Amino acid sequence: MREFELISRLMPMLPRNDFVVAGAGDDCAVLDLGDPACHTLFKTDAIVEGVHFLPDAEPEKVGHKALARALSDVAAMGGMPVAAVVTLALPAGRDAGWAEGVYRGLCRTAARWQVAVVGGETVTNPGHAWLSVALVGRVARGKAVMRSGARAGDALMVSGELGGSIAGHHLSFEPRLREAAWLASHHDVHAMIDLSDGLAGDLRHLLAASGGLGAEVLARALPIRPAARAQAREGDLAKPAVLAALTDGEDFELLFAVAPGDAVAVMDGWRSAFPNTPIRCIGKVTTGPGAWLRDARGLQPLPKGGYEHLS
Amino acid sequence: MREFELISRLMPMLPRNDFVVAGAGDDCAVLDLGDPACHTLFKTDAIVEGVHFLPDAEPEKVGHKALARALSDVAAMGGMPVAAVVTLALPAGRDAGWAEGVYRGLCRTAARWQVAVVGGETVTNPGHAWLSVALVGRVARGKAVMRSGARAGDALMVSGELGGSIAGHHLSFEPRLREAAWLASHHDVHAMIDLSDGLAGDLRHLLAASGGLGAEVLARALPIRPAARAQAREGDLAKPAVLAALTDGEDFELLFAVAPGDAVAVMDGWRSAFPNTPIRCIGKVTTGPGAWLRDARGLQPLPKGGYEHLS
Repeated sequence: MREFELISRLMPMLPRNDFVVAGAGDDCAVLDLGDPACHTLFKTDAIVEGVHFLPDAEPEKVGHKALARALSDVAAMGGMPVAAVVTLALPAGRDAGWAEGVYRGLCRTAARWQVAVVGGETVTNPGHAWLSVALVGRVARGKAVMRSGARAGDALMVSGELGGSIAGHHLSFEPRLREAAWLASHHDVHAMIDLSDGLAGDLRHLLAASGGLGAEVLARALPIRPAARAQAREGDLAKPAVLAALTDGEDFELLFAVAPGDAVAVMDGWRSAFPNTPIRCIGKVTTGPGAWLRDARGLQPLPKGGYEHLS
Repeated sequence: MREFELISRLMPMLPRNDFVVAGAGDDCAVLDLGDPACHTLFKTDAIVEGVHFLPDAEPEKVGHKALARALSDVAAMGGMPVAAVVTLALPAGRDAGWAEGVYRGLCRTAARWQVAVVGGETVTNPGHAWLSVALVGRVARGKAVMRSGARAGDALMVSGELGGSIAGHHLSFEPRLREAAWLASHHDVHAMIDLSDGLAGDLRHLLAASGGLGAEVLARALPIRPAARAQAREGDLAKPAVLAALTDGEDFELLFAVAPGDAVAVMDGWRSAFPNTPIRCIGKVTTGPGAWLRDARGLQPLPKGGYEHLS
């Protein structure tokens, strides 16, 4: 059973209550805890040694990644982070300096984003380390950007570059908090998601959440990370760069949908506010069905896959 | 390096911000998210297969335990829970029915306590399963009961029974949410903690947080769980029942301190509000130094130990 299948089987059993504005199924949950100005965002995320980072990764980067992944989810809602709690699982005999390095990296990133770290649990885990981060954040009441608001005809936009994250980006990316907050406050963003599973997979999540719409993505418009291009040149068995950009995962960029008439204003405003962060219109939302890639040969189904745990 | 030593080395580096009322170091963090009536409680906790539960434990009980541990921390602050997010880590090939059983147990307990489950992530973990739960809760502004308010002369009280939790209690306990909320609203509780590491260890945490006070515990006043008494009769090498009550851990009962003049009123009120939940005065806070056990032979140091991860 694949991860998303399991989650969709579990979703109907999750209890709700009157505090819930939006439950499981988006980048963060949205809660109404009584603040007259803001809703609360709530998210948890974990990284596992051997799955999300290798044993020889710098511990500071491991700590950074653990927090930055959750920050990226808060960004995708158009919110800002407030406080994090951490559980660090260590195998018996793991060097204490490693754990301190993880916390140093995590706390440095937290401080840079004015996030308080208000809890640090430690547990034993046989064989390898893992790190779980829960985050609360804030967003103006009723202003959280969901995955579910895309409309047929919307322009699809992507920040930054895609593919080849494994070469280093996945340990050092900065969450797009400023860009997303700017978007949410300056423009009518219909839907947004952060790219953790790969564009092909996450676009499907956004389309499914938006009532089963379709999409058309232009291969030549994809912003391909140089690392993905370099990997593609490594021989006849190498993954083509466009496929890498669609399926590698862990890009932690923003994918969002705006009305077609707003697309130029969004791109112009973005480029003036964030001259160092690429922004691209990569295609459009359609009435569907299906997600398609348009390249020199015409239309073909967008590849399946993407970064899936449990597969 | 032991768990608490690691945590105390990490604590000074944790960043704070203006939302933080109380950071790491208590049962929950306390945040001010703008609700004029309430502060927000924030906590994360995790259980690991082979450490906190065995592979043959009923999955429903595993899910219950994962949530109930965090609920017990909210209880220890005098608060009530609001919403939880969950990360379930599964080894490749784990039966999907097991994961569903874990969620069934967790969601049943959540529903019983009106807790919304607003996120369910799944990750791969080599070799065994683990489960991380983050929880937000609420407590009246300024009314969170901390570990740090005990005073010399206070009466020390414990709910329920202690020791022998491994025989089953650790998988089936109910968090003392109702009792703790009643305490916090009806009485001036100086300090409170939930008993996860064993009375001897957690009493020391409470005393350390309260400025390095001491304590005297009466051996014959300890409420000993029948399972601990049964284990103590299992032969010459069996753990004495009093030692089990002090060090077994995972009791998830409340330990709290009240002014000596309030002790009788607290016990009378408790017994009438919760006739099925034992309440005991087990000793008193002293100016210190040290935590002591008084038994038939006189005073001796309270045993060290308690339930420690990473030891």
